[in-house]
Amino acid sequence: RRGKMAKSTQLIDNEVFRAYATYTAIVLLKMMLMSLITAYFRITRKAFANPEDTASFGKGESAKKFLRTDPDVERVRRGHLNDLENIVPFAGIGLLYALSGPELSTALLHFRIFAGARILHTFAYLIPLPQPGRGLSWAVGYAVTLSMAYRVLTAAWLL
Amino acid sequence: RRGKMAKSTQLIDNEVFRAYATYTAIVLLKMMLMSLITAYFRITRKAFANPEDTASFGKGESAKKFLRTDPDVERVRRGHLNDLENIVPFAGIGLLYALSGPELSTALLHFRIFAGARILHTFAYLIPLPQPGRGLSWAVGYAVTLSMAYRVLTAAWLL
Amino acid sequence: RRGKMAKSTQLIDNEVFRAYATYTAIVLLKMMLMSLITAYFRITRKAFANPEDTASFGKGESAKKFLRTDPDVERVRRGHLNDLENIVPFAGIGLLYALSGPELSTALLHFRIFAGARILHTFAYLIPLPQPGRGLSWAVGYAVTLSMAYRVLTAAWLL
Repeated sequence: RRGKMAKSTQLIDNEVFRAYATYTAIVLLKMMLMSLITAYFRITRKAFANPEDTASFGKGESAKKFLRTDPDVERVRRGHLNDLENIVPFAGIGLLYALSGPELSTALLHFRIFAGARILHTFAYLIPLPQPGRGLSWAVGYAVTLSMAYRVLTAAWLL
Repeated sequence: RRGKMAKSTQLIDNEVFRAYATYTAIVLLKMMLMSLITAYFRITRKAFANPEDTASFGKGESAKKFLRTDPDVERVRRGHLNDLENIVPFAGIGLLYALSGPELSTALLHFRIFAGARILHTFAYLIPLPQPGRGLSWAVGYAVTLSMAYRVLTAAWLL
Repeated sequence: RRGKMAKSTQLIDNEVFRAYATYTAIVLLKMMLMSLITAYFRITRKAFANPEDTASFGKGESAKKFLRTDPDVERVRRGHLNDLENIVPFAGIGLLYALSGPELSTALLHFRIFAGARILHTFAYLIPLPQPGRGLSWAVGYAVTLSMAYRVLTAAWLL
């Protein structure tokens, strides 16, 4: 079956596409990790959003006090939303970029810088590092996506 | 034209890709449904986020009181954000997975379990069901995406 | 290399796919613009979410007062989240739609209306325009995505 698939699409046999697949899987997994970190802080800080999540702490007032926001939880959630806002455009524009026939070395440069910047961004957000650490790592990832979008629009332009 | 398209890509003629397209469309439509449910609760609970949305209730103080948060609205919004956090990685990693040449039966197993888990998750969130109903349905969808990511990284690895 | 890529996938040489790539890049760039607008309002309104972002305003109480929500910032953030909720399904379902072999003219009609509706939606949210301006522009984009999803499910259905 692998042979048939490869014959009909061959996308996965293309080196640029393989690099895209590798880095996109990595940054999407990194984004998914934010869910686990949120859960970790919700449990250790005892700060939940839904009444049914506090049922194990007893009923009534004793459970109600755990329905609250916590600064650490909110920080992870902001990092998660920032990932959505930045990794989604990377994944979408990156796919189009990978299919536009760039040089492998150029594509790898884009993907590596983006993945590195987003991993740095997560550390900068969660530690947290003093600014402009988080701002710069955000800007680098943003610039990589803009660069890929420029290539996509140049190669594909059909309005 | 359909013939020309099929000849140049043939993706849509690949059974694994057709299964991916079907399930991805279904879970994205399910995610879009959350917008309508949010609108339904905003209107029935009279709880809006923007001043211009309350203009039909009159001007000044009489309208201002509808600029508020409502527990039911916030619950749907949390479910919607959870969909974004989980269905986006599924759609992205699932596409790469579908292009990595898996067995149709294995791919269908992944897609069916994910779609079922996310539909259950929505019911668990909106009814709401007691925990660990929501937690388990979330974890099952998460595990399916991890399993597909493992296959993608094994098949495509190019760092 | 471009020639080799084109031979192995040819996706970028397909006119419908080129149109999809163009419009998806445009709406994703528009979504990314919301980050810059949020930053602009955070800086001009002096309203930040993270303590480390206010360090340049001094230490202690003098900086703490800038850790606050601002109506203009929150409005842009709601617009940004609405983009995520609507542009993500468009990008995902639109890719499947583009690969399902639609007529170029029909595809262009879908993409153009969606992009126009989302650009209008942003203006309606940020100015803000009185309702139902924002509601209608949202509904038009939503309907376009539903129409593409119908086509995808008809062409690909494999459950």
